[in-house]
Amino acid sequence: MANSKFEYVRLFEQPDQLLPNTWVVVRIDGRGFTKFATKYAFEKPNDKRALELMNAAARAVMTELPDITIAYGVSDEYSFVFHKSCTLFERRASKLVSTIVSTFTGYYVHLWSAHFPDSPLSPPLPSFDGRAVCYPSIQNLRDYMSWRQVDCHINNLYNTTFWALIQLGGMGHTEAEQLLKGTYAADKNEILFSRFSINYNNEPEMYKKGSVVFRDYELVEPGTHDVAKEVEDMVEPVQQSKTQHENDKKRRAKARILVEHLDIIKDDFWDRRPWLLSGKPGKIPKEP
Amino acid sequence: MANSKFEYVRLFEQPDQLLPNTWVVVRIDGRGFTKFATKYAFEKPNDKRALELMNAAARAVMTELPDITIAYGVSDEYSFVFHKSCTLFERRASKLVSTIVSTFTGYYVHLWSAHFPDSPLSPPLPSFDGRAVCYPSIQNLRDYMSWRQVDCHINNLYNTTFWALIQLGGMGHTEAEQLLKGTYAADKNEILFSRFSINYNNEPEMYKKGSVVFRDYELVEPGTHDVAKEVEDMVEPVQQSKTQHENDKKRRAKARILVEHLDIIKDDFWDRRPWLLSGKPGKIPKEP
Amino acid sequence: MANSKFEYVRLFEQPDQLLPNTWVVVRIDGRGFTKFATKYAFEKPNDKRALELMNAAARAVMTELPDITIAYGVSDEYSFVFHKSCTLFERRASKLVSTIVSTFTGYYVHLWSAHFPDSPLSPPLPSFDGRAVCYPSIQNLRDYMSWRQVDCHINNLYNTTFWALIQLGGMGHTEAEQLLKGTYAADKNEILFSRFSINYNNEPEMYKKGSVVFRDYELVEPGTHDVAKEVEDMVEPVQQSKTQHENDKKRRAKARILVEHLDIIKDDFWDRRPWLLSGKPGKIPKEP
Amino acid sequence: MANSKFEYVRLFEQPDQLLPNTWVVVRIDGRGFTKFATKYAFEKPNDKRALELMNAAARAVMTELPDITIAYGVSDEYSFVFHKSCTLFERRASKLVSTIVSTFTGYYVHLWSAHFPDSPLSPPLPSFDGRAVCYPSIQNLRDYMSWRQVDCHINNLYNTTFWALIQLGGMGHTEAEQLLKGTYAADKNEILFSRFSINYNNEPEMYKKGSVVFRDYELVEPGTHDVAKEVEDMVEPVQQSKTQHENDKKRRAKARILVEHLDIIKDDFWDRRPWLLSGKPGKIPKEP
Repeated sequence: MANSKFEYVRLFEQPDQLLPNTWVVVRIDGRGFTKFATKYAFEKPNDKRALELMNAAARAVMTELPDITIAYGVSDEYSFVFHKSCTLFERRASKLVSTIVSTFTGYYVHLWSAHFPDSPLSPPLPSFDGRAVCYPSIQNLRDYMSWRQVDCHINNLYNTTFWALIQLGGMGHTEAEQLLKGTYAADKNEILFSRFSINYNNEPEMYKKGSVVFRDYELVEPGTHDVAKEVEDMVEPVQQSKTQHENDKKRRAKARILVEHLDIIKDDFWDRRPWLLSGKPGKIPKEP
Repeated sequence: MANSKFEYVRLFEQPDQLLPNTWVVVRIDGRGFTKFATKYAFEKPNDKRALELMNAAARAVMTELPDITIAYGVSDEYSFVFHKSCTLFERRASKLVSTIVSTFTGYYVHLWSAHFPDSPLSPPLPSFDGRAVCYPSIQNLRDYMSWRQVDCHINNLYNTTFWALIQLGGMGHTEAEQLLKGTYAADKNEILFSRFSINYNNEPEMYKKGSVVFRDYELVEPGTHDVAKEVEDMVEPVQQSKTQHENDKKRRAKARILVEHLDIIKDDFWDRRPWLLSGKPGKIPKEP
Repeated sequence: MANSKFEYVRLFEQPDQLLPNTWVVVRIDGRGFTKFATKYAFEKPNDKRALELMNAAARAVMTELPDITIAYGVSDEYSFVFHKSCTLFERRASKLVSTIVSTFTGYYVHLWSAHFPDSPLSPPLPSFDGRAVCYPSIQNLRDYMSWRQVDCHINNLYNTTFWALIQLGGMGHTEAEQLLKGTYAADKNEILFSRFSINYNNEPEMYKKGSVVFRDYELVEPGTHDVAKEVEDMVEPVQQSKTQHENDKKRRAKARILVEHLDIIKDDFWDRRPWLLSGKPGKIPKEP
Repeated sequence: MANSKFEYVRLFEQPDQLLPNTWVVVRIDGRGFTKFATKYAFEKPNDKRALELMNAAARAVMTELPDITIAYGVSDEYSFVFHKSCTLFERRASKLVSTIVSTFTGYYVHLWSAHFPDSPLSPPLPSFDGRAVCYPSIQNLRDYMSWRQVDCHINNLYNTTFWALIQLGGMGHTEAEQLLKGTYAADKNEILFSRFSINYNNEPEMYKKGSVVFRDYELVEPGTHDVAKEVEDMVEPVQQSKTQHENDKKRRAKARILVEHLDIIKDDFWDRRPWLLSGKPGKIPKEP
């Protein structure tokens, strides 16, 4: 029995390959997480357990998809970056997005009980949506990453002050909102310090900077590599021999995946880790 | 501190709305499920627990996303259909696909232990990818559904015979493959019956027909509704008043979601359930 | 000398096939035609020569591209319709749009001197831009056509009244504009009639209805064909044998291409010309 | 009379903006030019009049669309390049492609009689199709340009030899084809020289190199500008003040548009004309 009569329906599938030689960012966001956070009584302004669960899921995604070179997470969102030379799934947008969203969600649900041992999950379960965006140049990519980290900073300073006014200052939500309207960063720092003796600089790095996930190789002296030049010279979608590709894959598999809370806006972070932009694995650090 | 310097990166997001007034099918597929099935020792040719877990996850997806009108699953794949008038997420492809994939995966992982109590999940976890396809006419949509069900039939007949030759006939994989090469459906039925006294018609419906998931309303006498005409007359992306929309939503929420194993190729299935194509909820059946 | 080193750049071409089984409308618009009309002293509110030049160019486009089933023009715009089963250029949007725009422009420039014998063209030359839009159902397509014809009517009634006030009533532009602000159709008819003894109904059909271009076959009694049903049953992108295709092509080539000024909003126009929606050429009328 | 009932059809128009910060190449190709060339008895292997008509049309396109920074033509094709920072028509693909195709065709038809005074155009008229492709990096763009110029060289060497064998050597088409099968460049040079005393190097530059169209500013010493760096630092779709934009526009309008036949594969061409990649107009050369 052939299936030919109906098979024409395959012709309706439309291609969705992303432009070659561009950086692909897949950003996922928690769906309805305000409600979800209330249901499981997430602490305000930051719930350490929830953030660490996000980070654990992101680390698992990077382990299963070695093509991801770096990821950045804040609150209920995570951005995963594929190198501009990446050809995973022929760069089909729906494959890339759905695979990341699915893998992330699977681990989020699976690891939940380890992070929230006292609050078993019940329907409706947490879920995430996602989208892919292409960035043509390193500068565009870095600006995207900076955009997310600046956003993290702005939101966290606001939230830290807002919840201090409520939790420590006894204000109502509307009152606190009203007080913060139109304030600058300096004002919020001042409120925290003068009213509650909180030095914002001493807040946990994970809250202030978000979380960066990447493979751990030996750091490099800044200024010794012109990665930008090297990377702009890569022009073709695939430029590696198969052997080279396999070698790189092995080195990536061997590398530890770190979750850190660093400044990714300044050059230093990128200069010392040239593998992030070059896409070529660095040296595995010796065991101490 | 404003975020304006980097915010331009948002301009790189490209719209991906699906054409209005077309049926949207989101199909998801298990990633690497051959390996996954081996790891958890799925029974061959069909693992009842695994299929029921798929169905339970699909039912959960339909509960959380009432805009889905019907779903069809076979093996490690599931197709979810949005009515052509649906405007969920402004019909953005990545939102629709990622939300379904995420919700499905979440439930698959969450419900795993209920279906496989003796095999706890361990990394790498199961995951799914997905894509959205638009079908302009009812006939195209029904042909898509028929395509999947014919595929189910072809594969299941093959697999049933193949594994009978191996499990009951003591053949090796290559030998069984060789024997089945070029055979027709009738030949396979004959092999099953003459060698193993298996009447393929008596195989479980879930294996032969796959699983159809839909809301349960009162069945209708075929021939009393011209749904096709009615549906072709719907032309705009949104054609409902807000009240009507809310009423429909409530009736959908009240309806039981059934998982059945029926022929969806013939007209009868669709004629008796006009709500599937009209998108308008039917009458809630009285309690028995 | 091989060209392999640079050939990778072809990979950056992204597919742009339009969804199968949908009606494709390519609409072209004059670029900067207000200025162009001033340069060549087009008559206001309608320049017969300019409209007839548009029609001549559209007729030439339809002669060169027999896949176009109907076209509709008003002012400096023209819409060309490809049947939903059309597979010309594999339905690639840029090919369809650019070919129509190019052919139309070529004839517009070439035929200019026949329509404007006293005003030779000089740079900057007239040009057109275009875009393709898909319509899934007959109703969507007819609503598109109706939208353009209603627009023609609204604009022409306004312009006729506006220019009567100026040319016959001696008003200034601003004064006329002010007077017409907020008026209804009935008001404009009244102004035309009471002030200038113009009965709008007696205005030329080309100005009131725009121009419809189509192939001439024998008209059919309304009610004898259920074209809509027939057309919805066409589901595949290609459904013809090669012989049938060639026969149809010949009949299309033989048919005269008419430019008429008819109501295309009501059913009658479509009912009497079933070939427009069926895509199947009708009977060539006998010579009188 | 409002037009609201039908206006919903506008929702079916789908956006087609090209990715920001990428170089946009619009390539147009003559449709059916083999037949067209025969109809008007184009000389073989190159018709000087036909090529000069192509160049005149391209120059007109660049005059009317100052956003185009460079164009390259060979045979019946022309590629027009928009700078990566260009925001013309909001970077909508169909607008960019259709405007270029239309303008080009208009001039091709309009200027025909000046180039072919003895062969008046008659239907079917010449027409062109077009498509837009995005290139993320300067290297990709230059590789595209090199690809076209290498193609020009390969084809022209082949055609020159092929037609020499026929026109001077008295061979038939098949015989000439057979003889050239599998030959290298050196072989063809040898055939030309030994059999017909033709030194390929002395062939006209327009035939060997194609035609490059660009604005004329003062040349720059190679090595004094790091344009590549400068250009990669441009990241946003629009990065100019309005005054700057207007100034640039004026300088572009003042610049002469040259049609030359130069090597665009080597760095020298680009190094001496930094305005091509920087997008910033250079100095207008003093009158001699």
